[in-house]
Amino acid sequence: MDKLKVIAHIHTDFPEKFGVPRQSGVVKSLTGRIVFEPEFRNSDALKGIDEFDYLWLLWEFEGVASDKFTATVRPPRLGGNETRGVFATRSPFRPNPIGLSNVKLERVEYTADGPEIIVSGIDMRDNTPIFDIKPYLAYADAHPEASDGFAGTHIEERLEVAFPSDLLSMLPADKRESAIDVLKQDPRPHYHDDPARVYGVSFAGKNIKFQVNRNVLTVTAVE
Amino acid sequence: MDKLKVIAHIHTDFPEKFGVPRQSGVVKSLTGRIVFEPEFRNSDALKGIDEFDYLWLLWEFEGVASDKFTATVRPPRLGGNETRGVFATRSPFRPNPIGLSNVKLERVEYTADGPEIIVSGIDMRDNTPIFDIKPYLAYADAHPEASDGFAGTHIEERLEVAFPSDLLSMLPADKRESAIDVLKQDPRPHYHDDPARVYGVSFAGKNIKFQVNRNVLTVTAVE
Repeated sequence: MDKLKVIAHIHTDFPEKFGVPRQSGVVKSLTGRIVFEPEFRNSDALKGIDEFDYLWLLWEFEGVASDKFTATVRPPRLGGNETRGVFATRSPFRPNPIGLSNVKLERVEYTADGPEIIVSGIDMRDNTPIFDIKPYLAYADAHPEASDGFAGTHIEERLEVAFPSDLLSMLPADKRESAIDVLKQDPRPHYHDDPARVYGVSFAGKNIKFQVNRNVLTVTAVE
Repeated sequence: MDKLKVIAHIHTDFPEKFGVPRQSGVVKSLTGRIVFEPEFRNSDALKGIDEFDYLWLLWEFEGVASDKFTATVRPPRLGGNETRGVFATRSPFRPNPIGLSNVKLERVEYTADGPEIIVSGIDMRDNTPIFDIKPYLAYADAHPEASDGFAGTHIEERLEVAFPSDLLSMLPADKRESAIDVLKQDPRPHYHDDPARVYGVSFAGKNIKFQVNRNVLTVTAVE
């Protein structure tokens, strides 16, 4: 196969990787806008897509390319100490840096620049290159009984979030719920536990500063 | 991104495309054996994979490459008359010919040629190149309530199969159930309806000849 073609980019509220949910669907309120490259701006290519509730996106893990094959990774879910085989994880550090996400199809908007797809439940940085969009087929793709392996051990919301209302009001009104949901997921590396440390998540045009003490995350500034 | 690396090939009982199920998981008894390329033959890369029930495979749709973007396709499920946007289908004729399948993890075998993964529910031809293997995560990937769109309209087994026992016995014993399941799915293009026509599915080293009259498929020869 030749080089992959970038068919679109997705625009999200995360200019940086820190804070992006570790899987799709985990923060359901997070939206993204898929904007096609000029060659692929064709409403016909989306004909019938509204019959589906969810879509698969294949996309590029950027900045992780390596010529060397590394067989194991240290999943953050396991505290960063244990190793797992790369094919037993969804880690970006893999032979072909392709991410797989399933997102909820919210709507298609027809603009002067072609059709754009609004999706939710994203787990991608802003401007991530998209290689493919496929419909989600429950009869083939849904296995609710499947084991989540080690990845299933920390799914529950982990933190209580204290977001002072004067700080919260500095975010756009339609981004506040998502911001809280993002923080609840605990963006820190799992092996961090330093209540004095100040972290910052870039989100929706702002930088949200916070500290974590035990299971309470407190927002200290919005810049 | 550079060219994709082929990490493995999957060996299945279908030397040709005709007869291959149209989605993964549809014929659960069909198995495949994933054999890694020398560079990726490393048991460490599979460490922990047995914690998962299902795997995603990203693989190459071979023989469909085209430099020209075709926005619509005619899904066989719709009788070949109606069009749908390519991104509303799982058709192989897409800008990047990458297939997405989920397969059941049966077991890993450790051989002199490295680890091999036995999976079931396959929908690939023999020797299909594999680009990636990822664990299936129910908490992120399972949406049993999702709409199947037009693709959900023909899921039920469509044909009754009459497979004379003297012909059936010409297949390896452990392939007979799968062969019947493959035929039940009706491998014909959906717009075919000619009881005189003889079709042949290459499967498990044999060619299975059959005819279809109304909803009964009769095997006429095994060669």
